[in-house]
Amino acid sequence: MLARARAPRYCPAMPRYALRIEYDGHPFAGWQRQKDQPSVQGAVEAALRRISPGLEGIAAAGRTDSGVHATGQVAHCDLPRDWSPFRLAEALNYHLKPAPVAITAAARVADDWHARFSATERRYLFRVLCRRAPPVHLAGLVWHLRHPLDADAMRAGAAHLLGHHDFTTFRSTMCQADSPMRTLDALEIEERDAEPGTEFRFHLRARSFLHNQVRSIAGTLERVGTGAWAPDAVAEALAARDRAACGPVAPPQGLYLTGVGYPEDPFAAPGAFTG
Amino acid sequence: MLARARAPRYCPAMPRYALRIEYDGHPFAGWQRQKDQPSVQGAVEAALRRISPGLEGIAAAGRTDSGVHATGQVAHCDLPRDWSPFRLAEALNYHLKPAPVAITAAARVADDWHARFSATERRYLFRVLCRRAPPVHLAGLVWHLRHPLDADAMRAGAAHLLGHHDFTTFRSTMCQADSPMRTLDALEIEERDAEPGTEFRFHLRARSFLHNQVRSIAGTLERVGTGAWAPDAVAEALAARDRAACGPVAPPQGLYLTGVGYPEDPFAAPGAFTG
Repeated sequence: MLARARAPRYCPAMPRYALRIEYDGHPFAGWQRQKDQPSVQGAVEAALRRISPGLEGIAAAGRTDSGVHATGQVAHCDLPRDWSPFRLAEALNYHLKPAPVAITAAARVADDWHARFSATERRYLFRVLCRRAPPVHLAGLVWHLRHPLDADAMRAGAAHLLGHHDFTTFRSTMCQADSPMRTLDALEIEERDAEPGTEFRFHLRARSFLHNQVRSIAGTLERVGTGAWAPDAVAEALAARDRAACGPVAPPQGLYLTGVGYPEDPFAAPGAFTG
Repeated sequence: MLARARAPRYCPAMPRYALRIEYDGHPFAGWQRQKDQPSVQGAVEAALRRISPGLEGIAAAGRTDSGVHATGQVAHCDLPRDWSPFRLAEALNYHLKPAPVAITAAARVADDWHARFSATERRYLFRVLCRRAPPVHLAGLVWHLRHPLDADAMRAGAAHLLGHHDFTTFRSTMCQADSPMRTLDALEIEERDAEPGTEFRFHLRARSFLHNQVRSIAGTLERVGTGAWAPDAVAEALAARDRAACGPVAPPQGLYLTGVGYPEDPFAAPGAFTG
């Protein structure tokens, strides 16, 4: 019997994968892993460990707060073997059940690609439903207000926030970012017939956001929409650079992380899976 | 002390109100009141009895099945005193909490107006989400399919069902209608980008529908959308007038009763409340 030649040990870097993740924030204490509370990161890592027991942990583009939703969160993970992006997404979705978390895209990325540090843009959506009756099919998916809002007044208020500013007024006192300076690239307010009532969708886009920035902006614009604040009061609040000048912070269930931008979209690359 | 003159007893017919009702069908065994299971009718009647203890019961335009949703169910009730439609809707929504049922419109109607017998049209929506990943925010609100559908093929199949036909193939064997003849006035198939995937919305309109007719049609068109059935097979199935010729019945969570038509819209009348 011939001794079989031993193959040389070849130990490449573990292949890295980007995952696009959708979740309902309701049952979770937020994205970030916590010791004693359910988190989205914990749910995704648990699913990953079913296919890769030694997994170290994953990094995400945005650490969403308790109750905040996502349709386009992005994270990356290193796996000890090659997976087709399609099979990886399918396996994770199988193991994620019944948690309200789904992998909607997967792609192989370069070893130095980082879901958080490679990101050049974050996109958020804030949904407000204005009608007297409580929401039924949208329960937990919108901020429900029983009064109407004036879209034009909110747009006039929002215009003051566009561009590069010190957003101290609009960030949580718990915010850990080094600087309160941020550039808000877009803040569009869409008005839709909700049969009955009206839904307002605030679409925001920036390279990065401060902690509670979107909810602070949404809550402040709501004050403008009711007429309690004049649109120009938003400029004064911004200029105050004082957290106390902010309107009330809007609740988490209206907020969605809808997408993360990268110099090249990993999920549009050849071989990537979306679905 | 003067004896107060007794007011003459004046006993008019009790005022009748039309209610438009939105509900999530998931927790209910259907619209119709049942002895030992939660029903939407039971929930609305229980709320009505909180404001009007002697209430007899209410009648609705469509008796939706277990799990079927509504955004535009209509019912009527007789109350022993006058209510402003606004206050009636508010009081009922207060007492309906936390059931996923909401009164989205209320109106005073004539004493002989009947939610079911005065109706001249029912509108239904059937929602299908086609994507690999499980639905998250739409869980329980769509029929989830993990394969794509061909909209043009489904439209060609649907065209055979428009107009006046014997719909025996497309009705439940439990259907209690006297006749299987119905006139399908519209069956439009809308295709929407669902990011990721595609959502199909089937919009159906008829004076009345048979039991399970919409779900039987949706399930049959799904077979056409996958290519398992040729569009012309729908015409053959219809002509067979045989329940066994039907495709599989689609599940209830994709189905919504979206509206009921009357010779005059009670909720558009002066004094009606919508919201």
